[in-house]
Amino acid sequence: METNRRPADTLTIMTQVVEPNDTNPLGNLHGGKLMYWMDICSAICAQKHCSNIVVTAAVDNVSFHQPINIGWVVTIEAKVTRTFNTSMEVYLKVWAESLIEKKKFKSNEAYFTFVALDRDGKPIKVDEIFPESDEEKRHYEGALRRRQLRLILGGRMKVEEANELRRLFVPDEN
Amino acid sequence: METNRRPADTLTIMTQVVEPNDTNPLGNLHGGKLMYWMDICSAICAQKHCSNIVVTAAVDNVSFHQPINIGWVVTIEAKVTRTFNTSMEVYLKVWAESLIEKKKFKSNEAYFTFVALDRDGKPIKVDEIFPESDEEKRHYEGALRRRQLRLILGGRMKVEEANELRRLFVPDEN
Amino acid sequence: METNRRPADTLTIMTQVVEPNDTNPLGNLHGGKLMYWMDICSAICAQKHCSNIVVTAAVDNVSFHQPINIGWVVTIEAKVTRTFNTSMEVYLKVWAESLIEKKKFKSNEAYFTFVALDRDGKPIKVDEIFPESDEEKRHYEGALRRRQLRLILGGRMKVEEANELRRLFVPDEN
Amino acid sequence: METNRRPADTLTIMTQVVEPNDTNPLGNLHGGKLMYWMDICSAICAQKHCSNIVVTAAVDNVSFHQPINIGWVVTIEAKVTRTFNTSMEVYLKVWAESLIEKKKFKSNEAYFTFVALDRDGKPIKVDEIFPESDEEKRHYEGALRRRQLRLILGGRMKVEEANELRRLFVPDEN
Amino acid sequence: METNRRPADTLTIMTQVVEPNDTNPLGNLHGGKLMYWMDICSAICAQKHCSNIVVTAAVDNVSFHQPINIGWVVTIEAKVTRTFNTSMEVYLKVWAESLIEKKKFKSNEAYFTFVALDRDGKPIKVDEIFPESDEEKRHYEGALRRRQLRLILGGRMKVEEANELRRLFVPDEN
Amino acid sequence: METNRRPADTLTIMTQVVEPNDTNPLGNLHGGKLMYWMDICSAICAQKHCSNIVVTAAVDNVSFHQPINIGWVVTIEAKVTRTFNTSMEVYLKVWAESLIEKKKFKSNEAYFTFVALDRDGKPIKVDEIFPESDEEKRHYEGALRRRQLRLILGGRMKVEEANELRRLFVPDEN
Repeated sequence: METNRRPADTLTIMTQVVEPNDTNPLGNLHGGKLMYWMDICSAICAQKHCSNIVVTAAVDNVSFHQPINIGWVVTIEAKVTRTFNTSMEVYLKVWAESLIEKKKFKSNEAYFTFVALDRDGKPIKVDEIFPESDEEKRHYEGALRRRQLRLILGGRMKVEEANELRRLFVPDEN
Repeated sequence: METNRRPADTLTIMTQVVEPNDTNPLGNLHGGKLMYWMDICSAICAQKHCSNIVVTAAVDNVSFHQPINIGWVVTIEAKVTRTFNTSMEVYLKVWAESLIEKKKFKSNEAYFTFVALDRDGKPIKVDEIFPESDEEKRHYEGALRRRQLRLILGGRMKVEEANELRRLFVPDEN
Repeated sequence: METNRRPADTLTIMTQVVEPNDTNPLGNLHGGKLMYWMDICSAICAQKHCSNIVVTAAVDNVSFHQPINIGWVVTIEAKVTRTFNTSMEVYLKVWAESLIEKKKFKSNEAYFTFVALDRDGKPIKVDEIFPESDEEKRHYEGALRRRQLRLILGGRMKVEEANELRRLFVPDEN
Repeated sequence: METNRRPADTLTIMTQVVEPNDTNPLGNLHGGKLMYWMDICSAICAQKHCSNIVVTAAVDNVSFHQPINIGWVVTIEAKVTRTFNTSMEVYLKVWAESLIEKKKFKSNEAYFTFVALDRDGKPIKVDEIFPESDEEKRHYEGALRRRQLRLILGGRMKVEEANELRRLFVPDEN
Repeated sequence: METNRRPADTLTIMTQVVEPNDTNPLGNLHGGKLMYWMDICSAICAQKHCSNIVVTAAVDNVSFHQPINIGWVVTIEAKVTRTFNTSMEVYLKVWAESLIEKKKFKSNEAYFTFVALDRDGKPIKVDEIFPESDEEKRHYEGALRRRQLRLILGGRMKVEEANELRRLFVPDEN
Repeated sequence: METNRRPADTLTIMTQVVEPNDTNPLGNLHGGKLMYWMDICSAICAQKHCSNIVVTAAVDNVSFHQPINIGWVVTIEAKVTRTFNTSMEVYLKVWAESLIEKKKFKSNEAYFTFVALDRDGKPIKVDEIFPESDEEKRHYEGALRRRQLRLILGGRMKVEEANELRRLFVPDEN
């Protein structure tokens, strides 16, 4: 039986309400609390694919454009985009919604990367994933480029080696 | 009186112990919980500089190379590196330490960006900051390049406009 | 524009992980913690329908047949079944899943009732809801009977007046 | 030595203050948070009788008639009413009190049922309990009827078999 | 109507279970968590007497002689002992109990002092309290001596002025 | 290698923000919550010296002179002052600061005592500590006197035996 080979099998939805302790004195949700929820939601998502314990390996740049207020509902959707030997990239979309004022906006997107671990805490190989929809394919394609950026920013790859990324800056190179 | 014009005035130190609820079944600290602590610590740091309420605007790429275990002590140090009109970039260093096993390692570094808000929630201008030590000057210099990367990754700047960043990939261009 | 008139518009999905503090010494999720999550999930669901603040008015009998363990993922799905002047009944389904052992079971079902409140805390009329699927229609039909049981058990209706419910015990009466 | 054979030996009293995070935007205590406290209080009560680990098996209908506000004190009293082989029924009374406004009201009553477990998580027999006061005897008598209702509502007993309960609806049948 | 003039009217009982996050790696309850519970319990107790908001003014020496373990039940009992113009002294007794191992011991005693505040946060006069039982009278008598010790240790009274306390060290001085 | 023999090696700094749930209805930080933070901070400090698990043995008198408000930043500094066979005394200083109103005051000082435990929970000998600065030497000297007061107040020493403390009350005795 082939299970959990598709991004759709990993879809994870989390709903949270912004409570007083989650906010600053203006009643705006702390960015750090949102990232905490995003981490739990995407970890469950990655675990749905690999059926192993996972640890967060990297969080890509996250921007918060608009404050989310106390009493608002936050909905997080996560899907695995691509796998790399022992790691998985997860794409997240976050919405904020005031059910009383009937307002809703997309708060932000993000990519979290997880490593699968066996019972002794050693990294373990994860199965490949096969994108189906156009959006899933676009995320799959971009994953290599984001991975190079992550490695450069994490000090584990030299700029010259990042071919995929280099093309963004020097498109006509070859 | 000239106060809080130096990065050293914004130094904020936070100490936390990793408790059971902060960890996965292997006893490793959740990445999201660590980012939650980092956000609070750096928000206090930014507030020390601007004396206003602040909201998280961006979190740069964060990598977690080594798991931090239950019972370990996490120490976070934050300092403002540079200001941009209404925003401030904060540099964080995170250490993990087992006081019983007498082990200690640098867990990760990160840059968080905050916007200062007045009492009505509108962005408000922040004072400039003047780096003193060599490390502070290096962070100050790099801040422009990181800002361009943030704007590109947040979809608010085109690759062609990112001169500062472009130099990384096409060093001999000009 | 006719919005939120269908049960499908109120669908709310919540995902939680069972953490150490949520469990007894055998690692079983506390029933009370699960009901706490169910209450938040169904309150959001009710609020999606009425766009007002809501308070829990009643929780129908809930049975827990099988323990849910630490590290398992709990998924709660809530939908409004029927409205009664100022109140709404919400139907909840709860699944428990071990992503590592690849086990999943339906933990329980429940009905929570909420009253809509205006800004002064006074009950306020809610719009009717119109079931579409067969399952939604079945829940809609049964809602009257459950309401009578609630009123009797809450000491606000006499057994003789509960016609709808009486039929269960004396089916051939008329 | 005969210990803990009387409901009075199981009396458990819990006091809580309603804090900001426990409330909705109107400052009313969440029903789910109250049920969470009731579950902990009644689990301790059941454990006092059986001296084993316990899990929540059922929660009977609970009605909330009046909102409890932020800053108010909640007092919960729990006593075992009757035992059934491996399970115990606990009766709870909940008061809400504003110490500043000198107001107090009985918020609600409830019945929670727990199963005793041995160290391997298997249900284990519990000792009988012997009611003494008139109120305790009344709760003891009603326990059979409530148990039948629980079994019917949980789908584990047919309406025709619920003799005890049937008498409520068809009193002159016998 | 004369209300709340007796220590017995202020009796407050709190029950808590020691959960994983409340303990160190050996599973012993943190002293600080216990003091947090004691503070809430005694603040409610003081508020029962004065019907005003209260703030903690002082905590007398507390000793912890025996560790309390995870899963144990902690019971705290608090009673006002004496009032001083705008403040009240509260006496607390703490028991720890393992319901499974059927062990119970008195963990510790303590005295917490609270100041009553009006709505503007200014200290406000509290009614006198009249001890009835022998134990209450003993606590009432000792309150002056403890108050002098508090003032000396808080740097607000000179040793020479502490007549009540001095008698302990120089009994024959008279 | 001689490590952690100096008070300076044990310096521990904790920063916290006062959140809604930490306060009373006037927005003042609960004394009990502050003591909870002080306990964690000083336990880490003691552990830095002894490299073993520690439990709180005693908390000396603590006075709170001025309320700390919601949104304020609390900074706690802890240092070991002296060791006694298997125990360590820790000195804490607490500051409260409003970063927006640019106000700061020293909230209070305190002494917490911890016992070092081996893996079986038995008290274990700790290394001596050698004070260097004048302030450290003053704390070192006073530690004996505070220890006698602790033992008397804990009912483990008779007043006549407390020579060190007696001198405070009868300075000209010999």
